[in-house]
Amino acid sequence: MSLTIYNSLSRKKEAFKPITEGEVKMYVCGPTVYDHAHVGHAKLYTSMDVIVRYLRHKGYRVTYVQNITDVGHILDTGEDRILKGARRDRIEPMQVVETYMRSYLDDMDALKNVRPDIMPRAAAHVPEQIEATQKLIELGHAYEANGSVYFDVKSWENYGRLSGRKIEDQESGGRIETRTEKRNPEDFALWKAAPPEHILQWGSPWGRGYPGWHIECTAMATKYLGETFDIHGGGLENMFPHNECEMAQSEAMTGKNYSNYWVLAGSLTIDGVKMSKSLGNSLRIADALKKYPAEVIRLFILSAHYRGPIDISDDAIAAAQKGWERLLGPYNQAQQMRSAGAAESDDSNIDAIIAETTANFTKEMDDDFNAPKAIAHLFDFVHKVNTILNGDAPVAASTLEKIIALYDELVEGVLGLVPSAAGNADENAADRQDGLIKLLIELRAAARINKDYATSDKIRDQLKELGVSLEDGKGDTKYRIAS
Amino acid sequence: MSLTIYNSLSRKKEAFKPITEGEVKMYVCGPTVYDHAHVGHAKLYTSMDVIVRYLRHKGYRVTYVQNITDVGHILDTGEDRILKGARRDRIEPMQVVETYMRSYLDDMDALKNVRPDIMPRAAAHVPEQIEATQKLIELGHAYEANGSVYFDVKSWENYGRLSGRKIEDQESGGRIETRTEKRNPEDFALWKAAPPEHILQWGSPWGRGYPGWHIECTAMATKYLGETFDIHGGGLENMFPHNECEMAQSEAMTGKNYSNYWVLAGSLTIDGVKMSKSLGNSLRIADALKKYPAEVIRLFILSAHYRGPIDISDDAIAAAQKGWERLLGPYNQAQQMRSAGAAESDDSNIDAIIAETTANFTKEMDDDFNAPKAIAHLFDFVHKVNTILNGDAPVAASTLEKIIALYDELVEGVLGLVPSAAGNADENAADRQDGLIKLLIELRAAARINKDYATSDKIRDQLKELGVSLEDGKGDTKYRIAS
Repeated sequence: MSLTIYNSLSRKKEAFKPITEGEVKMYVCGPTVYDHAHVGHAKLYTSMDVIVRYLRHKGYRVTYVQNITDVGHILDTGEDRILKGARRDRIEPMQVVETYMRSYLDDMDALKNVRPDIMPRAAAHVPEQIEATQKLIELGHAYEANGSVYFDVKSWENYGRLSGRKIEDQESGGRIETRTEKRNPEDFALWKAAPPEHILQWGSPWGRGYPGWHIECTAMATKYLGETFDIHGGGLENMFPHNECEMAQSEAMTGKNYSNYWVLAGSLTIDGVKMSKSLGNSLRIADALKKYPAEVIRLFILSAHYRGPIDISDDAIAAAQKGWERLLGPYNQAQQMRSAGAAESDDSNIDAIIAETTANFTKEMDDDFNAPKAIAHLFDFVHKVNTILNGDAPVAASTLEKIIALYDELVEGVLGLVPSAAGNADENAADRQDGLIKLLIELRAAARINKDYATSDKIRDQLKELGVSLEDGKGDTKYRIAS
Repeated sequence: MSLTIYNSLSRKKEAFKPITEGEVKMYVCGPTVYDHAHVGHAKLYTSMDVIVRYLRHKGYRVTYVQNITDVGHILDTGEDRILKGARRDRIEPMQVVETYMRSYLDDMDALKNVRPDIMPRAAAHVPEQIEATQKLIELGHAYEANGSVYFDVKSWENYGRLSGRKIEDQESGGRIETRTEKRNPEDFALWKAAPPEHILQWGSPWGRGYPGWHIECTAMATKYLGETFDIHGGGLENMFPHNECEMAQSEAMTGKNYSNYWVLAGSLTIDGVKMSKSLGNSLRIADALKKYPAEVIRLFILSAHYRGPIDISDDAIAAAQKGWERLLGPYNQAQQMRSAGAAESDDSNIDAIIAETTANFTKEMDDDFNAPKAIAHLFDFVHKVNTILNGDAPVAASTLEKIIALYDELVEGVLGLVPSAAGNADENAADRQDGLIKLLIELRAAARINKDYATSDKIRDQLKELGVSLEDGKGDTKYRIAS
């Protein structure tokens, strides 16, 4: 089986060939940590997560780098996002970063996205960004103006190659007052001079200032993955200007290809509308996770191809929830049957079913990580296995093991859709416990009325063994859980 | 009430006066993230955590900065700890940092230590460390030699003030070959020239290299808290050379006091022996947490004064476990009584008991954060409240509320000893659920044998409402939990 990946740079599917056999170096643009992450981030990073998981499943040794932008992400208004967050929350900029970075890491853990191997932070790589900027000046691709440094887009003929935009089409997005110091309006900042009151500032050969947004990815990706690496992931919405500028400056600096494959994910809308704070329709990951298990959110995200957009709505999530329950049915049943004891052998054609499912799953995932199609084959599998598990014929222990192993390897290993037994059981068990105990107390009271003391004592004793002691009061019985 | 703190600098208890009324700026030396954290780290950071919690309880607005050492911590052998970890784990240095930093953050969360407001990383503050080093050279307190920079201890007469060591007593701990380039053997590195193969290196005015260990704390503490701040926390075992060097270079650089109070915690031994990897008696926090709830580990740590040493053993932890169960008894009981409904009023002297407990607790915590004595008053409280809760007289809802409020404020708020209801119930509930359901299935089978179909149907229906469906097979009944 060979993997093909749609390369946003060539705009076609290409056979995947890593630079070093068996290894993949992958960089993904991380979040700007000035606010809590929303479900749009869940879409992007879960898409990337499944790609990393699948590459590892195929046996590649993946080095997965995802940055944290904690300085330099300038809004169209000219404001730094982190400073904006600091003003809003009335705390220091680095407290903003700390709070929202930890919140983001918590969200990613809760969504079961595997942890990147390295998560470099932009503010932690100022010397590297200054070095990259100096190199670009030396090579004639950047120039200083009033303490700021800009990349000269006209000096690099490949500028626009990723996004397909021509220079004439473009708006710089910079502040009006800075445009006058640029040679071309499309030039973008590598380094910005800081006014004295700007808190986030460092010394540089051009005076005190702070790095531009795009240069951080160049500095950190090349530092940890080399000048040319295999896969650059991110969101389609950042293809321009961010990825375009990043690629131009990187290739101008090294004279080499930057990333061999650009793997960009489509975005997420809410009820058909782009999610944005100003529209008030932003849904935090943490809030979504209060309503749905992580696995349901993952299955919802994976129900569309990663490159496409997806629309989140209560109906869509409800459908994912139903699908997820159906998907996990045979897994739960096989585990219960296993613990209840199973037959020695059976006549099921489980080996053929597993081989077919695995082959189909792999074929689809090899085709540019087509998770929705791969999942469709898993539903075929569910259908066939349900017939085996619920039929009249005995089911062998080995059959149950094979079913569970497929879930462990593909459904959980690649897609992250099987809840950890403990975690899931806990949550429901806590809600259920009070009801179970009260029902037993009721049955005991009825037994005592019927003078069936054997039963009432049995209930009391067995509850005690389970750590639940009963206290009979006037008219009712309370229970107490041993702490 | 006024707070007194034992100041390791003056070696006496002093009334606490913050620089700015109502605010506390506090810096604590964080871990070097080259391996998993052990229970010695739990002792140190839980001690610091309770200090921060208590200061906030008293109404101070605390800015709590704790650094992460991810470069520059050189061992006596001359090895960088991070590089040592990288060689051991066969991964990149920054993967080492990522892995063990996340592991440390997980451990601290699991131990319920409140998150610091800012956790700056040494490798993220190389420019600041270079600037500090430059300043020290300009002021005549440091000198360059072969691309490295050393602090000249003889240029600073206050060197030795914190630890009380005289220069003659000291061993530099540096590599033998570097000693020849030092003016005095006690001089310590601010910047080290890097051999070309050294991976962690940056450009500097003295060539490529990396910062020394001590200078990171100076650079980060002054950056985030100012040149003089209120409290510097850490472990007594790092008083020399780390804190001594840190204070000397900071005060030499600014000409001002560095930290007004030095609050240093005693260390932890295992079965009477210092914990160390080479002795093979290192106990990871994560492993300890598999055996004991976080609250038990916290209570164990708080059973000795933070400045003193503490010895961990199975017996000591078992004692803490017992104490913790006794401590929480009235809390659990009051909550159960509340949910069962309580009397309108009672004759208990709860207000007096709460006032006395709070006053005693505060008096002890105000006396250099004497948690063990404060906890002893909580046990007196438990004794008195048990008498009220288990007496023959009715207990009012308001009494229950007051008891619960004291737990929330002091036992949990200051000491972090109350488990979250959900988390704790869950864990036991999951283990218990199978037993409860099987008991109900047994009772149902008995009812059916007795042709008591009202009871058997009731059990089946109520289980269904609780999300448990029964499937009768040949000879036995299986259950299935709705996912």
